[in-house]
Amino acid sequence: MTDTQDRRPGVLQSLERVGITNLKTLIETDWDGLRFRFTPDIEITIDLPEDRKGVHMSRLIESITESVEEEATRKGSSIEEIGKRILGRLAEKHPYRRGEISMSADLVVYRKTPKSKRKTMEAHSIMVTVIRDGGKYEKILKVKVVGNTVCPHAMSYAGKPHIQRAVGELEIRAGYAKRIDLKDMISAVENSFSCEVYTLLKTEDERAVVEKMFSNPKFVEDVVREIIHNAKKRFGNVRIRAKAVSFESIHRHDVIAEGHA
Amino acid sequence: MTDTQDRRPGVLQSLERVGITNLKTLIETDWDGLRFRFTPDIEITIDLPEDRKGVHMSRLIESITESVEEEATRKGSSIEEIGKRILGRLAEKHPYRRGEISMSADLVVYRKTPKSKRKTMEAHSIMVTVIRDGGKYEKILKVKVVGNTVCPHAMSYAGKPHIQRAVGELEIRAGYAKRIDLKDMISAVENSFSCEVYTLLKTEDERAVVEKMFSNPKFVEDVVREIIHNAKKRFGNVRIRAKAVSFESIHRHDVIAEGHA
Amino acid sequence: MTDTQDRRPGVLQSLERVGITNLKTLIETDWDGLRFRFTPDIEITIDLPEDRKGVHMSRLIESITESVEEEATRKGSSIEEIGKRILGRLAEKHPYRRGEISMSADLVVYRKTPKSKRKTMEAHSIMVTVIRDGGKYEKILKVKVVGNTVCPHAMSYAGKPHIQRAVGELEIRAGYAKRIDLKDMISAVENSFSCEVYTLLKTEDERAVVEKMFSNPKFVEDVVREIIHNAKKRFGNVRIRAKAVSFESIHRHDVIAEGHA
Amino acid sequence: MTDTQDRRPGVLQSLERVGITNLKTLIETDWDGLRFRFTPDIEITIDLPEDRKGVHMSRLIESITESVEEEATRKGSSIEEIGKRILGRLAEKHPYRRGEISMSADLVVYRKTPKSKRKTMEAHSIMVTVIRDGGKYEKILKVKVVGNTVCPHAMSYAGKPHIQRAVGELEIRAGYAKRIDLKDMISAVENSFSCEVYTLLKTEDERAVVEKMFSNPKFVEDVVREIIHNAKKRFGNVRIRAKAVSFESIHRHDVIAEGHA
Repeated sequence: MTDTQDRRPGVLQSLERVGITNLKTLIETDWDGLRFRFTPDIEITIDLPEDRKGVHMSRLIESITESVEEEATRKGSSIEEIGKRILGRLAEKHPYRRGEISMSADLVVYRKTPKSKRKTMEAHSIMVTVIRDGGKYEKILKVKVVGNTVCPHAMSYAGKPHIQRAVGELEIRAGYAKRIDLKDMISAVENSFSCEVYTLLKTEDERAVVEKMFSNPKFVEDVVREIIHNAKKRFGNVRIRAKAVSFESIHRHDVIAEGHA
Repeated sequence: MTDTQDRRPGVLQSLERVGITNLKTLIETDWDGLRFRFTPDIEITIDLPEDRKGVHMSRLIESITESVEEEATRKGSSIEEIGKRILGRLAEKHPYRRGEISMSADLVVYRKTPKSKRKTMEAHSIMVTVIRDGGKYEKILKVKVVGNTVCPHAMSYAGKPHIQRAVGELEIRAGYAKRIDLKDMISAVENSFSCEVYTLLKTEDERAVVEKMFSNPKFVEDVVREIIHNAKKRFGNVRIRAKAVSFESIHRHDVIAEGHA
Repeated sequence: MTDTQDRRPGVLQSLERVGITNLKTLIETDWDGLRFRFTPDIEITIDLPEDRKGVHMSRLIESITESVEEEATRKGSSIEEIGKRILGRLAEKHPYRRGEISMSADLVVYRKTPKSKRKTMEAHSIMVTVIRDGGKYEKILKVKVVGNTVCPHAMSYAGKPHIQRAVGELEIRAGYAKRIDLKDMISAVENSFSCEVYTLLKTEDERAVVEKMFSNPKFVEDVVREIIHNAKKRFGNVRIRAKAVSFESIHRHDVIAEGHA
Repeated sequence: MTDTQDRRPGVLQSLERVGITNLKTLIETDWDGLRFRFTPDIEITIDLPEDRKGVHMSRLIESITESVEEEATRKGSSIEEIGKRILGRLAEKHPYRRGEISMSADLVVYRKTPKSKRKTMEAHSIMVTVIRDGGKYEKILKVKVVGNTVCPHAMSYAGKPHIQRAVGELEIRAGYAKRIDLKDMISAVENSFSCEVYTLLKTEDERAVVEKMFSNPKFVEDVVREIIHNAKKRFGNVRIRAKAVSFESIHRHDVIAEGHA
């Protein structure tokens, strides 16, 4: 008996992306000699030709489960390697031309506070997407980092700025083989704010942060320009998208800027 | 034939709140001679005795639909009157001892900017809850207002504060008959921040806002104390809960304070 | 004195989208002789050339406020006309090449229940985007409609399906002048599910809905194909994107399908 | 010089909860011989007497950071032990009468699929709260589990039910010393649905799930009654709160039930 998924649908229309979203699972990686464990939110999709009614969804799940287990015990695996492994395995289980997998998680990095030099843990949102198109792999890496903006306009006419939390995003699209460290992407964004932020700040640290803020006023437009500038310098010839949103302290709406290079 | 809902359940256990949530509908009110239209998110629940398997959910919906239509054409109706009407009508359709309805919406109020005196529209989150318990009505009114905090600690030791957006909440629980204007509640919260915020600010207005911020530094703790203080003065003998959350510009986490009176 | 925004930035980099997001305001429209009031969430952005440091944000706000007031009193205004009016006015206040405005809101429509023929109100998420590029206008209309899927695979082998809520989306991109009714777009999505859903259902209505569901099993893939098919038939030569997500009742993840035409 | 936090505020008003929210950090536990790593969302608050202007927020952070490091290397540590350790350490750094810490995370557990007996990973939302009041500890454990409901009313009159995803919640409040396994709480909720759900289901598994659903129709009211019943049996004399929400497949709103024991 033919599975319902393999039948011809009533309406002939190919679909670009069919699959599973909001799947949480446990993955383990090994990067620069450190083991990381994530519980990412996963979206995995493949294209569907016009003469097939549906995708066999359980094969997507199996590709994930089996690959995650294999990679967990391997040295030197990264999130994108797990993604590539999953798409490769899926190609053996289910025909497709273009498939993609995105994994979103929190990456915790260690920092020192600026003055008292205490250890602090900082969590950043990351998303790693791997695309397999006609057998060829590409990747999109994205980080979302918290920072701030200090209004240069108010600073210039009043000597007193309004200040607010802002979020900066950097997305890089590159060939799969290109080595890009998410931590370098996070730094590229952090260095674009009026000042980077910290989970722990003792009074002397807070003072240093506030002084840096006041000496470094920026619009969200400035933040986006500098993210792009920093990313070009560090990562060379890749496709870059940057975005910043500031949660204005003098308005109830947010201010947004986006650019690419 | 007995409806399934009216049968005796396998497990005998009374339930406190059974009903419907995330229902959006259109309501119309008339307050101080002005007509308002809202599309609130509604939650309506009643208690269920241990010997009844289920609530007849469609009667909750009918009570809402019929009451909303009636009130739409009536002069002097408020959100809480619609709530009271719904619970009263429901009591005729479905037995219950304690019922409650909450309606969450955005209330848009007109303001003048501080210096250029231009008209601006400001949207605030509100929630109106009406409770009917043994035939007696009570209400809980809540507003959520955007503002800011300016750190008095950094101001005191560095002469330069960190500043951030904050959200203040005021919740008042009172007898149904007590007249309380949501706009007065919004003012009670706005006046508790370092400065109130505006959708539109020309440069001269922005300057006034920034000057006021710097002359009025506050912790979230100060904001909550002042919300409670303002609410006591304006509304007298009612139950008050206040909360403030500030989206710190020097940290990636938020700071929170809550109190009641 | 030159405004800070008009200065030359340190990094030369043009930006595609700079503006304001998460702004809520009150708009009033008049469509087919009916007056509607919305409190949409607005995002408005313009491009910024590489030699300008920032956008004058207050001019974006003024364009919105002034246009909203004018349109409120005009007959025959739609959401997209308000968007066009805002972008046109903005072009007089602030130079830009490409600007866009998106307004997201809930549209409440009246329906009759399938058997008992009672009146019911159904709220749907809509988004209207207007783009002005080199003086020429385009629009993107989007609706997000709740429905359901009934698994044809389980139906075929077990005679018993799993059923779940699903959300269908239809996005149409067309020249500004093309007349497209959001209510027709909503119908195009509703008719693609196993059965349309209702806020109010008496037992006889519920029975009709359940019977229709069982006689009309569909994968999310089927839903997307039919949204596209329906939209092509109704709206002709426009750019169509469709998406469906089903909140599987047998899994904790969601199933997704997307297509375009 | 006195810190600003230690000064007397203008308004005398004690506050119940002051602290930090939406803090993400990395914690490591060891439970039943297995090591777990979480990146929970943390909220930590203490009360503030009326004569103190503010809380020294950095001491809350330090208590977390230092405790997390210590526990990471210890055998037999649970999430609640980390919470207790943090509150104990905080009491040495900052005076308070009542403090509480909540940690929300995803707990991934391994299961076998019902027929094909394949290994599958299931992620559940958990929240662990520890309260320290006058030196005495209490805890609140909460799990949020995905499942489904199959309408017994439609089943009874039409022989065909509507089915939908539902979410069940169980919250247990107990003395700190009481041993309660979050995995047992998850089972108590899973066993209350029409059928438990799985990430991976091959056709034979799916068939078993669908058959079980149809033979086991339940309202959300039934789900809540059974969660309470299961929790009483397993955990004895504790305070229990249960809640279920079903994302109705025939409506655009959700149905809710709550109870306690």
